[in-house]
Amino acid sequence: MKLLEERIKRDGRVLSGDVLKVDSFINHQMDVPFLSLCADEFHRLYADEKITKILTVEASGIGIACLTAEKFGCPVLFAKKSRTSNLSSDVYSAPVMSYTHGVLNNVLVSKKYLSSEDNVLIIDDFLATGSALLGLLSLCNQAGANVVGCGILVEKAYQSGGETVRKICRVESLAMVSAMTDDTITFQ
Amino acid sequence: MKLLEERIKRDGRVLSGDVLKVDSFINHQMDVPFLSLCADEFHRLYADEKITKILTVEASGIGIACLTAEKFGCPVLFAKKSRTSNLSSDVYSAPVMSYTHGVLNNVLVSKKYLSSEDNVLIIDDFLATGSALLGLLSLCNQAGANVVGCGILVEKAYQSGGETVRKICRVESLAMVSAMTDDTITFQ
Repeated sequence: MKLLEERIKRDGRVLSGDVLKVDSFINHQMDVPFLSLCADEFHRLYADEKITKILTVEASGIGIACLTAEKFGCPVLFAKKSRTSNLSSDVYSAPVMSYTHGVLNNVLVSKKYLSSEDNVLIIDDFLATGSALLGLLSLCNQAGANVVGCGILVEKAYQSGGETVRKICRVESLAMVSAMTDDTITFQ
Repeated sequence: MKLLEERIKRDGRVLSGDVLKVDSFINHQMDVPFLSLCADEFHRLYADEKITKILTVEASGIGIACLTAEKFGCPVLFAKKSRTSNLSSDVYSAPVMSYTHGVLNNVLVSKKYLSSEDNVLIIDDFLATGSALLGLLSLCNQAGANVVGCGILVEKAYQSGGETVRKICRVESLAMVSAMTDDTITFQ
């Protein structure tokens, strides 16, 4: 999506440790009118699918998931992060490594809200190692839910997550970063 | 808002410890088409104000904040929760007590994204003790931003938060719970 690539070039900043900072419009301050256009694009890409639920993970996925759900007219389910290991029996859970924060979280959803009746679109802001998506896919697998695909704003295409997740399901990323240096961001 | 009261009566559950569970449509699974109607109501209530930014706090405020921002055509800024006390100098921060989790968090926003130019609408899902709203109001105060008011989905009107915050700014709550027992929820 040309519009998103141009916006990342203009407002994204590359920090040390391979960090692409987009907190001026995606994951701290959110440019909602702009993100609504990204949601339109997810809707166009998955228009032929009968989506019953959009699944994401707190916190920064929730906004784009809700804007996308509005286009599909379906609910959102956001997985919660928990660092406690004693989980109740009424949740599905999966481990997710956060590389930004260097911690292992469990992501969990209530069993009540995900089932074999569901046709799920997974939405998230970033795809790099794929750990978050694999966790969400595991939740769907445990619930017997069908996953239609994933919609991602920014994929770091030089990391392995995209290749791994594409072996399991369709992945549509609106911007694919192929390389970053201190002052240039290159797209595929 | 009659529609929200009816939905809470139908789908809300009262748990021990004065907990109103609405995780089937507000803060775990989110009924986005329904919440979009709530966002329309916030837009109607604050239609005369020139809102430059909607402020909320992660995680469960983000969805309703984004849906509301879409109506106003403005950005969202979500405050992040941090349990670390060593904060960098480029953020505003304020302490917030989470009664649900029994911990004291700092909420923080980058100084870059909140300023004296801003006319802020604060959006959140719940108002009970008012601790979260007072934290967000403190962030605005530190930034010199003007607060137009607050838009809340569910207020526990028998707790003191609403009275405290109304001394500082306008508060519009779409459902005001005046009492809860195991099997009845009463509205003002």
